[in-house]
Amino acid sequence: MGKVIKIGFFGCGNVGSGVWKLLTGFADNISHRTGLKFELKRALVRDIHKKRDIDFPEGFLTDQVDDILNDDEISIVLEFLGGEEPAFSWDLAALKKGKTVVTANKVALALHWHELQRAAKESGAGLYYEAAVCGAIPIIHTIEESLQANSISYLYGIVNGTTNYILSRMSKNGEDYETVLKDAQKLGLAEPDPAADVEGFDAAYKLSILASLAFHGKVPFEYVYREGITRVKLEDIRCGQELGYTLKLLAIAKRDGLKVETRVHPTFIAQDHPMANVSGSFNAVFLKGHACDEMMFMGKGAGDLPTASAIVSDLVRAASAPQHQYPTFTNEEKPAVGLVRNSDWKCAFYVRTMAKDAPGVLSRVAQTFADHGVSIAAMQQKGERQNDRVPLVFITHTARETDMQEAVRQIDPEIATVESLIRVEK
Amino acid sequence: MGKVIKIGFFGCGNVGSGVWKLLTGFADNISHRTGLKFELKRALVRDIHKKRDIDFPEGFLTDQVDDILNDDEISIVLEFLGGEEPAFSWDLAALKKGKTVVTANKVALALHWHELQRAAKESGAGLYYEAAVCGAIPIIHTIEESLQANSISYLYGIVNGTTNYILSRMSKNGEDYETVLKDAQKLGLAEPDPAADVEGFDAAYKLSILASLAFHGKVPFEYVYREGITRVKLEDIRCGQELGYTLKLLAIAKRDGLKVETRVHPTFIAQDHPMANVSGSFNAVFLKGHACDEMMFMGKGAGDLPTASAIVSDLVRAASAPQHQYPTFTNEEKPAVGLVRNSDWKCAFYVRTMAKDAPGVLSRVAQTFADHGVSIAAMQQKGERQNDRVPLVFITHTARETDMQEAVRQIDPEIATVESLIRVEK
Repeated sequence: MGKVIKIGFFGCGNVGSGVWKLLTGFADNISHRTGLKFELKRALVRDIHKKRDIDFPEGFLTDQVDDILNDDEISIVLEFLGGEEPAFSWDLAALKKGKTVVTANKVALALHWHELQRAAKESGAGLYYEAAVCGAIPIIHTIEESLQANSISYLYGIVNGTTNYILSRMSKNGEDYETVLKDAQKLGLAEPDPAADVEGFDAAYKLSILASLAFHGKVPFEYVYREGITRVKLEDIRCGQELGYTLKLLAIAKRDGLKVETRVHPTFIAQDHPMANVSGSFNAVFLKGHACDEMMFMGKGAGDLPTASAIVSDLVRAASAPQHQYPTFTNEEKPAVGLVRNSDWKCAFYVRTMAKDAPGVLSRVAQTFADHGVSIAAMQQKGERQNDRVPLVFITHTARETDMQEAVRQIDPEIATVESLIRVEK
Repeated sequence: MGKVIKIGFFGCGNVGSGVWKLLTGFADNISHRTGLKFELKRALVRDIHKKRDIDFPEGFLTDQVDDILNDDEISIVLEFLGGEEPAFSWDLAALKKGKTVVTANKVALALHWHELQRAAKESGAGLYYEAAVCGAIPIIHTIEESLQANSISYLYGIVNGTTNYILSRMSKNGEDYETVLKDAQKLGLAEPDPAADVEGFDAAYKLSILASLAFHGKVPFEYVYREGITRVKLEDIRCGQELGYTLKLLAIAKRDGLKVETRVHPTFIAQDHPMANVSGSFNAVFLKGHACDEMMFMGKGAGDLPTASAIVSDLVRAASAPQHQYPTFTNEEKPAVGLVRNSDWKCAFYVRTMAKDAPGVLSRVAQTFADHGVSIAAMQQKGERQNDRVPLVFITHTARETDMQEAVRQIDPEIATVESLIRVEK
């Protein structure tokens, strides 16, 4: 048995408690398997007097960041504060002092990755971030340490458990968005201010990280197109189901020729696609490499113990590596080759219209699509007539986003109104 | 850029060619990402004059194993011979000479794992085996390096692509076993002698390896219960579909209380289970850890480049580790705690009978089940009447295997014959 490695926590809420539970309750197994012993020395919290579920030992909690930064015995800091600041400044300070940082903080990582990485390199410390994306799923390790021999052409992620929970319940039970959101808030699956999740910010931060790894170059958060689930209508979920599709909030990164595109938006996928059965609060990443072919990784994207599982795996990795440095991977600071700010890409579309029930209407709508290079793969009358209007649902072949948007603008509302436009990935 | 690492191959068929393609065609990317350079020095083959797809350089192929074993420049050997011998003896000889071995050979590993590991330990070499199970899927790395803080309670695998391809086509197209098998043989997806796949041997070897890792103790191949797909009837696949199930050849490892059970057999799973959409020649592993909760990993289980993708990831790992040793994991030589030779376990069952169409028959069959502690969750009349018999399909609640087998023996064939008995996992 080697020496004892002393650990500090930045934060000690839900995830911190999970890590505490694992590193105390499962310590003997971890030591037996890895030959490592950890001592949890200090945790930085805002209020050391707050009532907590766990009875931490006297002196473990502190509200002074310097108690950790200036403690030379602490060689590894685990950060679960979340948010950009003060987390980023403290992580940076720890790295500059030569302490290895294991972080679950997607925001600080997505926005300041290379500053953190440079600081780590300069001081000889390590920077680990498996828990920052998709909780327990080892997607970071997998891209970094199992797919080095692959050129990745695309990556689809269900990376936000809150929105997947909401969409799954809407799909399965036919409940509407507002009802399920309120319930999710009651159950603690959605925040009182749900914007970060339902507007797709959380997914976009994670996609920025995943795409940077997959394409071996920086894909900044600002380059990710983002559209949340707040405008998703139950009727479209139902129509989609009848046509063989499941609705998911997908985070998509694709290399199309030399162009790299990244986007987060509600997306229809085929019901027999492996991601279609990823439901509830589960996350998944589906990707294709030129050697490995298609792969999918599914698991819990949040929660105290699932996140702690990923953090401890990073901790073991850090503690086993010389000077705690990352063993194999070199991340790239320069932008990904072919990176563009997204406003255009190719995909198929689901378009629901309310059209006048008169001869020639279908042909005129189809002509407008055709005029913009959009061809129709299928059309069906779905749902109920309203006054003189009938619902017509179109599925298009692959088309350009900008062409499709223009076609939709050009459809004469006197003959048909476009109620919904949802992207379809095949 | 560090020194050049020189590599030998044991074997140079399909997988060897895949590794050659990746390590030559993608060499610059791999070097850029990992800082490593590899030289492919020598490949051992049976016939150096055989016509091959790749035009290997003069002197690369040899039919003398000593050309590799006695070459002190070669520090890592990649083995893709398959089968127990001579692969095991040669791997052992290489390890004894201090060469690290990266193997794709499930049979040699399952049967001689600890002999190989001991030899590696003694000489200070490394032993890597990601490609031995599930091809491109990094399931070995994941269990060893991402789930150290987990107690795994169960693991379900679709680990044989041939049988998954056959069952997927039977399920999707309603084709019978013999037709699909012949087609799979034509397509190169099944061997001319298909027994290793269709009788479940291949899956049982892989399960022995996965269960040993998951339960941190040896689970010998002989302890795995094994039943193949040769007796699967199309009618049962159809009946199961109507009841909401998909048929898969599952490799199952479970820790039930203190008992560890391992078994390979055709299994019904719910159509909305994430494994139900794993079709064609894909593999997947679904597991549960006490911290990470449920996870699934899906990908190609065979093929030249997918397997090569896993081998190169091991190669990079070995080349990056001090003395090429495995960085974190200690595997256990002693048997898994609670290991039993499997003949009994608990699961639900699908039972298809042909029963006499007369009053009291259902009640007598149900009574026989009840007498053996098996309770019925659902019963349906499915399929066509034959003479005076009607097909009755039962789904049971969880019951003991031995009780179920005894109940089936006790059903009076005068009133009902048991046509099929298929295990159901929920």
